[in-house]
This record gives sequence, structure tokens and C-alpha cells, in this order.
Amino acid sequence: MESGVSDIAHIGHAELLTPDPGSSLAFFTDVLGMVEVARDEGSVHLRGYGDYQRCSLKLTAADHAGLGHLGLRTRSPAALERLVARLQAAGRGAGWIDGDLGHGPAFQATTPGGHSLEVYFETERYDAPAEERSALRNQFGARGGPGAGVKRIDHVNLMSTDVAADRAFAEQVLGYRTLDISVDGDGRETGAWTSATIAPLELVFVLDPTGRDGRLHHLAFWVDTREEVLRAADIFVDHAVAIELAPARHTIGSGFFLYGFEPGGNRVEVTTAVDFVYDPDPPLRTWTAAERAAGIGWGTAFPETWRSYGTPA
Amino acid sequence: MESGVSDIAHIGHAELLTPDPGSSLAFFTDVLGMVEVARDEGSVHLRGYGDYQRCSLKLTAADHAGLGHLGLRTRSPAALERLVARLQAAGRGAGWIDGDLGHGPAFQATTPGGHSLEVYFETERYDAPAEERSALRNQFGARGGPGAGVKRIDHVNLMSTDVAADRAFAEQVLGYRTLDISVDGDGRETGAWTSATIAPLELVFVLDPTGRDGRLHHLAFWVDTREEVLRAADIFVDHAVAIELAPARHTIGSGFFLYGFEPGGNRVEVTTAVDFVYDPDPPLRTWTAAERAAGIGWGTAFPETWRSYGTPA
Amino acid sequence: MESGVSDIAHIGHAELLTPDPGSSLAFFTDVLGMVEVARDEGSVHLRGYGDYQRCSLKLTAADHAGLGHLGLRTRSPAALERLVARLQAAGRGAGWIDGDLGHGPAFQATTPGGHSLEVYFETERYDAPAEERSALRNQFGARGGPGAGVKRIDHVNLMSTDVAADRAFAEQVLGYRTLDISVDGDGRETGAWTSATIAPLELVFVLDPTGRDGRLHHLAFWVDTREEVLRAADIFVDHAVAIELAPARHTIGSGFFLYGFEPGGNRVEVTTAVDFVYDPDPPLRTWTAAERAAGIGWGTAFPETWRSYGTPA
Amino acid sequence: MESGVSDIAHIGHAELLTPDPGSSLAFFTDVLGMVEVARDEGSVHLRGYGDYQRCSLKLTAADHAGLGHLGLRTRSPAALERLVARLQAAGRGAGWIDGDLGHGPAFQATTPGGHSLEVYFETERYDAPAEERSALRNQFGARGGPGAGVKRIDHVNLMSTDVAADRAFAEQVLGYRTLDISVDGDGRETGAWTSATIAPLELVFVLDPTGRDGRLHHLAFWVDTREEVLRAADIFVDHAVAIELAPARHTIGSGFFLYGFEPGGNRVEVTTAVDFVYDPDPPLRTWTAAERAAGIGWGTAFPETWRSYGTPA
Repeated sequence: MESGVSDIAHIGHAELLTPDPGSSLAFFTDVLGMVEVARDEGSVHLRGYGDYQRCSLKLTAADHAGLGHLGLRTRSPAALERLVARLQAAGRGAGWIDGDLGHGPAFQATTPGGHSLEVYFETERYDAPAEERSALRNQFGARGGPGAGVKRIDHVNLMSTDVAADRAFAEQVLGYRTLDISVDGDGRETGAWTSATIAPLELVFVLDPTGRDGRLHHLAFWVDTREEVLRAADIFVDHAVAIELAPARHTIGSGFFLYGFEPGGNRVEVTTAVDFVYDPDPPLRTWTAAERAAGIGWGTAFPETWRSYGTPA
Repeated sequence: MESGVSDIAHIGHAELLTPDPGSSLAFFTDVLGMVEVARDEGSVHLRGYGDYQRCSLKLTAADHAGLGHLGLRTRSPAALERLVARLQAAGRGAGWIDGDLGHGPAFQATTPGGHSLEVYFETERYDAPAEERSALRNQFGARGGPGAGVKRIDHVNLMSTDVAADRAFAEQVLGYRTLDISVDGDGRETGAWTSATIAPLELVFVLDPTGRDGRLHHLAFWVDTREEVLRAADIFVDHAVAIELAPARHTIGSGFFLYGFEPGGNRVEVTTAVDFVYDPDPPLRTWTAAERAAGIGWGTAFPETWRSYGTPA
Repeated sequence: MESGVSDIAHIGHAELLTPDPGSSLAFFTDVLGMVEVARDEGSVHLRGYGDYQRCSLKLTAADHAGLGHLGLRTRSPAALERLVARLQAAGRGAGWIDGDLGHGPAFQATTPGGHSLEVYFETERYDAPAEERSALRNQFGARGGPGAGVKRIDHVNLMSTDVAADRAFAEQVLGYRTLDISVDGDGRETGAWTSATIAPLELVFVLDPTGRDGRLHHLAFWVDTREEVLRAADIFVDHAVAIELAPARHTIGSGFFLYGFEPGGNRVEVTTAVDFVYDPDPPLRTWTAAERAAGIGWGTAFPETWRSYGTPA
Repeated sequence: MESGVSDIAHIGHAELLTPDPGSSLAFFTDVLGMVEVARDEGSVHLRGYGDYQRCSLKLTAADHAGLGHLGLRTRSPAALERLVARLQAAGRGAGWIDGDLGHGPAFQATTPGGHSLEVYFETERYDAPAEERSALRNQFGARGGPGAGVKRIDHVNLMSTDVAADRAFAEQVLGYRTLDISVDGDGRETGAWTSATIAPLELVFVLDPTGRDGRLHHLAFWVDTREEVLRAADIFVDHAVAIELAPARHTIGSGFFLYGFEPGGNRVEVTTAVDFVYDPDPPLRTWTAAERAAGIGWGTAFPETWRSYGTPA
């Protein structure tokens, strides 16, 4: 693959596991403002007002929180074929499924760090019912429902016990490019920020100090303005959602953020205002532990939970 | 009265008449995001999340749109007594009523231009039910409901067939101060912007070219940021609310605005970002017809409806 | 005086002392974006683009940082007379001065806690030179200069060794109303938020645990939107200004804030989005030490410096 | 080429011609807030604070306004080779130049509509001088200079006498994908919005009703928030910049915009908040003349100048 061109178009959807499905659903609808589009045994399918696909979040009842799987949509049917071949060659493929609500045949695979993937191309574009339709016909849904009104799924941050291995997989098999890494005093990678587009980060790996495979750090949802992140914080407070990190600015990627925990225990981010990277071959930036410890953006220090908490907890 | 000190504290509430009460109610709750607090025969009482009083808008079914009455809260019981005496001396008093939902005894009066007033002091502070309560105990309601989420009633603009007379009444009887007036080529007043606080406008009179008394130009609701006004415009569009003037900036008062028509026909504004006037004796500013015709703020031209449309239509 | 009506219109100006006048001046012009209007021996006079008066900040070289004096403008000449009489009766008056750049005769006085005041009425309204004039003739200056572009001086927070005494003086002599107080476990006042207008705080006193009189906690400048506060934080970072508290939201007054230290050592705030208090007789709110310790707004904890640092340091 | 993957990474720079170079330079530095990085005979090179390259705008004195040329950076050296081969095969190539300030060897070409292109890969990344450096080492320049503070060049809109031909060239030779087109009553294309990334528009063609080749409709600069667009409008007004369209929202692409004319006569846009298109194969949207005439976004009508004005005028 040539630099900067991935067979993957974008993160298509994520399945989130929750031991408290009723409260989690209330969070994603009333607080984040997503819309329920369907439910089947054990799962509810949700979308942001700006998702072009029918759904982007599958909320599944389980005995613990965590990431069920991550769905990646390819650029084309041919890109899907190429990707499946690479997954199989890498010994990471699991096999095909017929599809799921909202998308067609998908090939299942596993990352080195034990996260489940589904790669697919065929998808169902959303046809909003009348009461949910925007007056502008290039909008996928109306604005103005309750809650923060997130637009779409944005990125995912996976905990990893071997960041370098997960990053190599993301680059060589999935075709992501890496824009930033962080390292500890011994030069070991503690974080990798990769992307398949001009967005500065889409698939992120951070070191899991507990040594457990397959944990989720957080799932992030996009809003269009920093004001909407501030408003989301007001709404989090008024809905008794636990805020882990109040709105501020990242250094890596420059994203403006709000972090909290949904009732099932998964960490969720509301984000916007990243620096898009039009440069096709930017120099890899390496961040030292000292730089990361010195605080981000405007000096914000990460809380202790940031380094160690993931789901399953 | 000394300059800048009115016996009136603020506009306490407004009663809006609507020939389409069901649709109007849906507008004020789903689009503006107000909360229904009570209903009695023919009327629904509503509030913004930041109103300290129990309600600020009384929506009343009627055979035509328009302003039912305007409620003005005084600074104290003594201020109410003084004000009633002045209203009676001016021959504008009508008499006492026992009160209404949310407030105590009120003295009814009429402006020179034929608008109905109620002045009162005793009020009921809002005690939000648990599900509507903010986590911050100095907030009067939770954020995050559907719609634009207006905070409180802000100002009212009344059409007048004799702006100078209405302004004199506002200044001499009510105690408002006038910050800006507009005049036509003959020097006749065509608009007057008056206030009882550091807000640049609370009670506004504009010339009604149709010569009819007692019409309403618009009722305005406050949000805290310009971004919320932009978001309100997105919500107006997606809810098929007729926008008369898309978001832009006024010259007089500098308010950032959005104007539309609620389904009953009344013009409604969402506003913020005014220039507060701390100056206790600012020179009166007089705006010529040429200046007004040249456009406001960033050059916005008023549509024809702006000059002539009011309710009743 | 009747509740809610002060003889004081607003804080007219503040004199800030700095041991590093060159760097302080660069901060107020290049980072905060104020405009220099004049300089005389030892002092530079500055203004925000929205100050109606000629100047609002007097920056004076000194051997230590701190507040030189606070200038309070009265509502009228009569209000000035009444105020001077009360200051003299309270034994807090020092005598008249002829005036200073930008204002007329002023009566000097001292608060119980040892801060210097000047009360005055006659003032010079700003007549911007052509290159600094806004195209809108009700604007006091053009926008678009370098830095954060603060609009005007907003409020001052004074450290006090006897908050209750300073509050009594503010209420009974100056005519401010108190909206919020904080108390410690023994019921002793540790903070008082007072105002002469609908703004929720203009003159604030907080306990100085070091027992020193006359220290300044911070001086605050207004911008119109939360986005401008965020932008100010970006500018602070890029200009190596020490940020003490990154942008977040207060509980008391609801102000959105950014706190940093100007090079002379004085703490400075950029603020907006407060909850205006139209209620003429709001119940006094008392905040416990436990509530304050639990964090403000979205959970922000005050740094240790917040409680103890003031100027002179 | 596979859908959605262009050999072009992004618009690298634009050369703008101006008959009033001094005033134009003052506009781009004092009003838009760009930084001058170099000047040579007849030209000044400028950049936004977020441009990763040394410069993105070349301002060149000429006897008329218009676009000098558009610089497109390829994804790689190999992509440049492929692209040059396609340009030559299409008979649109002109030949190589050694480069210009900030970039290496470039191949010159011409669009069907007569606009000059330069395609290149080698570029100079910006190394900000100390006084212009951000404290965050992944930022390309400091924030807080005068003016609106545009971040980077965003897109260009070219007038065309044969939109379908220009679009075919953009798709087949340059590798852009088309997301939206507009047509007149006869089905003739009147506009085409194409992109090489997830941005909804980067290279736009609109019909030139005057039948002249090679005219520029506008050049657009990015800011990160809608508030910055509003602030830019305030700054335009205060600097007497002619506003053609005050801030509002597009339908196509959803961009929030401000349009004005720089003193040389070229139309300039400040924009943000577009809908990024992660969908790799979105259905082409076709907009009718009736839809376009009905207004955009919140109902904004285009002024007459919008259809006919371009540079050279």
C-alpha cells in the first residue's frame, strides 16, 4: 500500500457491552442524544444524527463492560478482498458472517491485542422516518432531540499489552498510518495514534499496565463545535454522569474533549476541533513520558484512572 | 426617580395568545425547549431552564395571535406601591387581581398604545421536581432537554402607533431608561429601546405603520452563547419553523439574533451577546432612517415583514 | 437604600501594581489585547475594546505586585454625595483628589480590609482615534487587534482577613447586594460575592489565610463568548503565560473562566457566561466548606495556590 | 484509480493576483491574520498559523485581480509521476519548473477551463522563528496575532464555462471525487463540488455566465469554530471590508461561511464546520436550479453578484 491510502474507509460501528443495559441505553439516548433505530435479542442499535449508515453503535447486554467488536468499512469490494487476504495471511482471520443489522457480509478477525474486528463493505444507508428527517436533504437526521446531540462515532482507543505489535498490525494489515507515538523511558511504545483519513486519530492504542488483553480505553463521539462539548459537560453534570476529565484540549491531535463513564462502566468521549492532517507524509512525532506527564494542551493532568482504567474493569 | 433606577426589576412573564394552541405548545416545548409547569382552562404555563420564577410564559388559546398581557415584577413591595400610585395618577390603572399561577396580587394597567400590563411583587420561586433538577443547586432547572433550550424570557418588542407617548410612559411611569431611539425623516420616533437594568433593551417600542393599537412585534428568549443561536436555527429548519431573519447581529444593543414565527403566528426571537450598559448616564443615541435602512450589524437588511407584521396580524 | 439599588454604578477602573512593568504591559496589550491610551510618570493607562470610558486599567510600576486602588463610578452626582457622606460617617474616608487621567474629582477611602478605593462620577467617554474606531458608531473600539481581545473590566476579587466585616461595608456603605457567601466549619465567612447590578458578582471578598491586609486575589476581564475564553487559553499557552486554572465553569455565578498570572505576579481572569440575576430579592445562598472542596462546575478542583496566593505575594 | 483515492493530497497553495498589492497585503495580514514569510520581486508569500508548509498564499502584483495559479501537492513522488503522465496524455501539460519559494520541482498544466495548475511533491515544512512558535510542538505557529487568525487554506472555487468538462478533468486526470453537482433546467451542470479527501469540497467549479475562461470565484480559508467566523465578520466590519454574504450556513457541504472582497477585488471566504464525508462511495447528489434558488441553509439567498462576479472582474 502507498502511504496514506488505506483499504479501510472508516470505523463503521462499534459494539459496546454493558452489564446495565437499561441505564446504558438511557445514557446514549437521553445524555448523548443518539437515536434508537432497532433492537434484537440482547442488543439495541443506535445512531448519531450525522451517521450516514443506519447505525453506528450496538449496545449489547453482557455480564461485563467492554468492546464487543469494532466494525471497519472498506473503501470498495476490491479493498475488502485485499484486506481479507492480508488478514488471512497474517493468521488473524476468523471467518465470514452473513452480516448484521445495517450491513452485509463481514469478515471477522482479531487484533494482536485480542480485540475483535469485523470488516465489511456493503452497508445500509439511513433513510430517516418523516419525524426524524432534516429539512435539508443531504442531512442524515434532524437536530434538536434531547441530550448532547452527538453527530457520529469518531474514534476508538484500545488498550494494548504490546502497542508496537498492534501498531504494526494496524499499519501493515489494516493500512492505517501512524501520526504520533508515545514512549516510556526505555523507548517502549506506550501509545500509537493511527488514522485512515486526514483525521489525526481514528484507531488509537495505549498501553494497558494491567497486562490484560482486549480491553477498551474509550469510544469517542463527534460534535461539530467546542461549544457543544461544553454543553455536553453541563448535561453530564445535570444527569449525574461521572465526569473523568472536564472539557479541555489534547496536545496530540489537538482534539477538544470531555470524558465520562456511561452507566455500564465504559469510558466515553465527546470530541471535536482536531487538527486535520493534509500532509501526506508527515514526520512521525514521538512523545516522551516526561512530555506526557507534564500535562496536555492547557496543562491538564490526567487522573490516575486514565492510565489504568479500561473495560472490562 | 433617579436615572437608571426603576421600581421595576424585570419582565416577569408574558401571556401569548394563539389560535393554534397545540402547535404553539409543541413549538415552545420541542423547538424552544421550554418546560410545561402547569395548565389550567385555556392556558399552559411554561418556563426556561434558567427562569428563577415558576413560569415565564403563559400560552393561551384565543381566536387570534398576539400579546395577552405583560407581567412586570417590581423591586420590592414599596416599589409596587409607588408604581401603582403612578399608574393611577396617570390614569392608566385598571385595578387589582388576586394573582395567577406563580405570582401574587397584581395591579392591571394599560400602556398608551393599548398593551395590557400586570405589575406584581410576590412570586413563587421554582422548585424543580427531582427529574428536572440540576446537580448544581443554584441552577433553576436541568439542561439537556429537547430543542434549543432557551434559558429565560429576555425582552419584548411592542408595536406602537405613538412611540414617543409610549416611551414617555415607560420612562416616567414605569421608570425605564431609554438608550436608543430611531426617527424618521420628520424626526418622528419610530423606535425606542428602554431598559430597567444594565441590559441594553428590555421593553422596546416600534412604530406600527398599520395604525392599529396593541400589537406585538416579538417576544425574545435568551440563550447564553451565539453557538446556541446557530443551533436554534438548525433546529428551526429541521422542525419546519418559518425563519424570518437568520442569525446575525443587531446594531442597536449588539444582540445576536434569530427570528421566526411560532405556529400561532407570533414572532419569536432567540437572542444573546448584547452589550451590557454599565454607564449610568449614557448619551441617548438617535438613529436615522437612513442608518436603519443601510442594514444592521454585518449589513443584514430587514425583510418587508419586519416593518409591518405584528400580531394580531 | 432599598434592596438591589446601589449608589455605585459599576467598577470604573483598577490600578494594578507591577514590579515588571515592561512585561506586564506586553501581557495586557499582546496577550489580553488591551489598548494603551496614555502614559504618565510610572503608569500606563489601558482599555478594553468595549470600555465606554477612556481607560479601565492603570498599570503602575512598583516594587511589588498588588492592587493600587479600585475606582468605583457612582450613578449620579447626588449618589456620589450620599456615598461620600456614608464613607465619612463610617470613618473610612480619606479625602478628595482632583481626579486622574480619564475621570474627575474622586473621594478616596479605605475598606475595612485595607484596600484603597476612589469613588467618582465625572468621567471621560472614549473617543476612539480613526484607526481604532468601529464602523458601528455605538461601539467604543474596533475589534481585531492582537491577543485575546478582552472587552472590559468585569469584576475584582479582594482577599480579606475579615470577610464578614468587608461584606458589611460593601452592603451598608457602598450599597452592594450579596448573592452568595461561603462559610467554614465554624460558620465563619470565607467568601462573599456582591454586586451592584444584575451581574452575579462584581466585588468579591475571599478569606486570606495568611492574615495580611489589602491583598488582591484577582482582577477579571470580560469577553462575550465561551469560545473567546478557550481562544484566550490557546493564546496564553503560546505566549508562555502561566495558567493556574484552565477554562472551566464556576458554580457560584456560573462564570466560565480562565485564570493565569501576568508577568508582574498578579492573578488575572478572563470570564464570561455568568447567570444574570434579575430577581430583586434572591435568597442568600450559603456554601459550605464541604461543597466548595467537592469541586466546582464540572468537578474542577482548586489548586493549592488558589486559597493562599495573592498579591503582594 | 480506485474511487476515493486521489494521487493529489491537497491544495498546497494558491497565487492570487492583485492590482492593489499594498492594500491586499494589509487585508491578508491585519484582517485575515496571515503571517508574511518571505517576499521576492512582485510577490509576498503568506501562511496561516496551521499551515504545515512554509507558505500557502502567494500574493502577486498584477494589472488585474484573479488566480495566478493553483498548487496541488501529490501523495508521493510516485503519485506525482503518475499524475504528470496523465496530464501529458490528456494534452494539458505545459512543462516542469524548478520550483518556487517553499516547494520543489513542479509540473505546470492547464485545466480545460483555462486555470493554471502546478503539481509538486517536494515541499518545505515550516520551522517557525522563536517569536512565532507555539508552546505545543505539534503546532505550526502561535495563535494570538491580529485579525481573524485563519488556520490554513481550505478550498478554491473556480468559474468555468463548461463545468462538465472541468469536472471530468478533475475526476479522470486529477483523481478527485465528486460529491455534489447542480444543474439548470436543461440538465446542464452549473456547479460541481469535488474533493481528494473526506472534506466535502476542495476543488469547486461553478458556471461562469459571462463565458470567460479562467476566472476565480473565491479562495477559502479555514478557522476551527463557527465563533471564529462570527468574529471574522466583526473584524471585517470594523476594517471596512466589503461583506458580500454575512455568516450563515451552506446546504452543500454544510460549511459555515463569511464572504467578502479583499481590496484587490478577489472574493475571499472564511469557513468551517463542514460535514466530513467518511462514506467511500456516496451517491452523487444533484441539486436543481429550483432548490438552489430557494435559498441555502437557513434560507439565505445569494446576492446577484454571487452568480456573475469573478476575477478578473
